[in-house]
Formats: sequence, structure tokens, C-alpha cells
Amino acid sequence: AFEEKHLASFDPIKQFAVWFEEARQCPSIGEANAMCLATCTRLRDGRPSARMLLLKGFSQHGFRFFTNHESRKGKELDSNPFATIVFYWEPLNRQVSCAPRPGEEAAEWGGAQHPPHSVGIVVGRWDARLVPFPPPHPFAASSSDYFPQIYVYQSKPDLCSSRRGGYVLKPDLVEFWQGQTNRLHDRIVFRRLRDPAAPTGPLAHKGEGNWVYERLAP
Amino acid sequence: AFEEKHLASFDPIKQFAVWFEEARQCPSIGEANAMCLATCTRLRDGRPSARMLLLKGFSQHGFRFFTNHESRKGKELDSNPFATIVFYWEPLNRQVSCAPRPGEEAAEWGGAQHPPHSVGIVVGRWDARLVPFPPPHPFAASSSDYFPQIYVYQSKPDLCSSRRGGYVLKPDLVEFWQGQTNRLHDRIVFRRLRDPAAPTGPLAHKGEGNWVYERLAP
Repeated sequence: AFEEKHLASFDPIKQFAVWFEEARQCPSIGEANAMCLATCTRLRDGRPSARMLLLKGFSQHGFRFFTNHESRKGKELDSNPFATIVFYWEPLNRQVSCAPRPGEEAAEWGGAQHPPHSVGIVVGRWDARLVPFPPPHPFAASSSDYFPQIYVYQSKPDLCSSRRGGYVLKPDLVEFWQGQTNRLHDRIVFRRLRDPAAPTGPLAHKGEGNWVYERLAP
Repeated sequence: AFEEKHLASFDPIKQFAVWFEEARQCPSIGEANAMCLATCTRLRDGRPSARMLLLKGFSQHGFRFFTNHESRKGKELDSNPFATIVFYWEPLNRQVSCAPRPGEEAAEWGGAQHPPHSVGIVVGRWDARLVPFPPPHPFAASSSDYFPQIYVYQSKPDLCSSRRGGYVLKPDLVEFWQGQTNRLHDRIVFRRLRDPAAPTGPLAHKGEGNWVYERLAP
């Protein structure tokens, strides 16, 4: 079983670090850092695409990976910074997904008054050859801090011609899934609160920082 | 290496069957039928979500799985039938993704004159308890035949109250990925042609049926 009391941390990034290390140590897992990245077109009828790639680092800044700006995923990320990543460590019967919040489009990202790049999500390009991770956080506390987002960093605009880009996904929803042999799987989801004073629901517990966590029904 | 000459079939579903069977026979793969399903909201700024689930069958009709209509993925599938599935068999260094075609939105699904359900994609609900797979194909050759799509079948409208639904994803893009130790991975992609007489590009080869296949640059 995987219940609230089994959490190693009430911060999902630290909890991820524990599971990631256990996956790394697992002899039957070859690449613990393999993950499925789902991206999406931005047109009125979003169409998802997905593929495996390798996580190249993580921190409180988010999850870092590289891709080619001219690939399908690169183009989709550059036009639509929302994305989801899924780790699946079958020998441990575990899954972690980092996703945008469902159902908040209307309230937070709703109208034509918000063109795609108007909320400070794409803050520049990050040339991975030059800038160590994590890059300096380019903006202080702002509303965009709480968006599930992909940061595309590049410190030197004159290097924009580099086709290979580093991306950092900063999730505000992280779900830990522990499969059980009886198929009644355990799921604990962390959500980042945009307003720390907002009510969190009857089953949610206060985590570290602006995180709350909740065990979902199997 | 995985080159055109290594294909077991020029039909991607048959090729998938070969790889799937090899994954099933692989002692270090516990659930060859685990796959990552990426779905997406339909609003003007599509947002992807993704999670693992189990393939429950496949045929020329597509890839079958179940979910709860009231889950996030169920709601997203019911409003946006485009989806992508990814199999990743790490011990074999293989990946198969079944995805919509990129870049065809504008031509085929473009205007406000096409409300979400106007092209015959959702053809009914399929109650998995009553109807064997594959269900009878409810429409003959029509334009919707060539859409990447999720069919939601249910034979008895009075059973719509069942929250658990069977879905069938019919891909028109299937990519086979074989990882190489030198990281120059081999990729062969199959595309279903909507117009069999259309030009296929200089590197594409005619496959079975309306499929063409092409080896991508590493």
C-alpha cells in the first residue's frame, strides 16, 4: 500500500527524488530517467503527441530535458508550453506524472485577451552548452509562477540558431501512483495552490510550500 | 539496426503484432501491454494529459482499451477523440507510438464549420460486457475512415449509464523506434494515405493497403 503516511516528503519534488533514486538503484530498470513527454498543438482542437525521452535533471525549478526545436515536439512546445511527463517504473509498479491542472482553462487562461505568449511563459531560450542548470530564475513571484509551464531558456540571443534546446517543465500537479497486485492502486496527488489561502477540499492536506496533497480513490 | 528490410510486414498493425509478441515473450517485461495514453482538452489552447494503462486488444480496427467516462481521460476522449498511445519496451530498446498526423489540422479539421462531433467520429458507445471485439464496423468507406480517431462503441443506448467504456484508437500514423547503443536510433514511420493516389514523397515506400512507410533520419 502507498498511503499518506508512506510519503517521504510533503514536497512532491523531494518525494520524486526518493522514488527516482529507488528506480535508479533498481537492477531491472535500465534507464530510470526515461519518460513519456506528451505535447499538444495549440489550435482550437488540440491534438496530442507523445514519445519517450530522457530526463536530464530536476530540481525545485522543474524537470529538464532537451529536444530539437525543429522536431514535432519542439515546435509544439514552442507554440504551446503546456506539457505532461510520465515516468513508469514497471519493476517497482510505480508511475509519476507531472501535468497541468485539469479544468482551469476557463478561469485562468480563458479569453481572447490572452494570446499564447502574453503571460510571460516563454521567457527566452536557454542554450544548454553555456548555462548550467538551474538557470537563474528570470522573474520574481508573478502569476505566471503558478502556471504549469515549460520554460525555454537561452541566455544568448545570438545563439538562437542552435536547433537543440533545453526545456524545463515546472509542474503544478504531480501524481504518485503505486500499483497493487489487487488492482486497487494507490494514488496520491500534489497540487500547487495559486492562492495559499484558498480552501483545499475536505480530503486535502497541507504540504510544504504552496503544495497540498490528497489520496485519490482507487 | 532496424531498417526497411527488417520489417516483418508492410502493414503497421502486423508489424506491431510481431513486436508485441516479442515483448510478451521477453522475460524481463512484466506487462507488454502497458502503454502511455496522451489525451488533450479541446478548448482553444489544448492541454495534454497522459498516464499509463493497459491495452486490451488490437486488430485492423485499432487499439482497444477501457476507461471510466467520468475520469479525466474519459472526459477528454469523449470531447476530443484525438489521442496518442506509446508503448515502451525498455529491455528490447523499442518504442511504438500511434499518433495523429501532424500538420493536417488546417486542411482537414479547420473551420468553425466543423463542430467537434460533426465528422462522424463518435459513432456510438460500446458496452464491453455485451459486444465482442472487434465490434461490427458501423460505417463503410467514408472520409472519417481516415481520421486518427477514437471510436467509442456501445451497442445498447439504454446501457449508456455504464461509466466504464471501451475505446478503440485507430491510428493513421504508427512509428516504430529501435534504439541503438550509439544513440543513432532507427525510426520507421507508417502513414495512412487518405488519397491512395497522392504522391508519397521521395523516401516513402508503398506498404500494404493505404499505408506508406519511410525511414526517418536518426
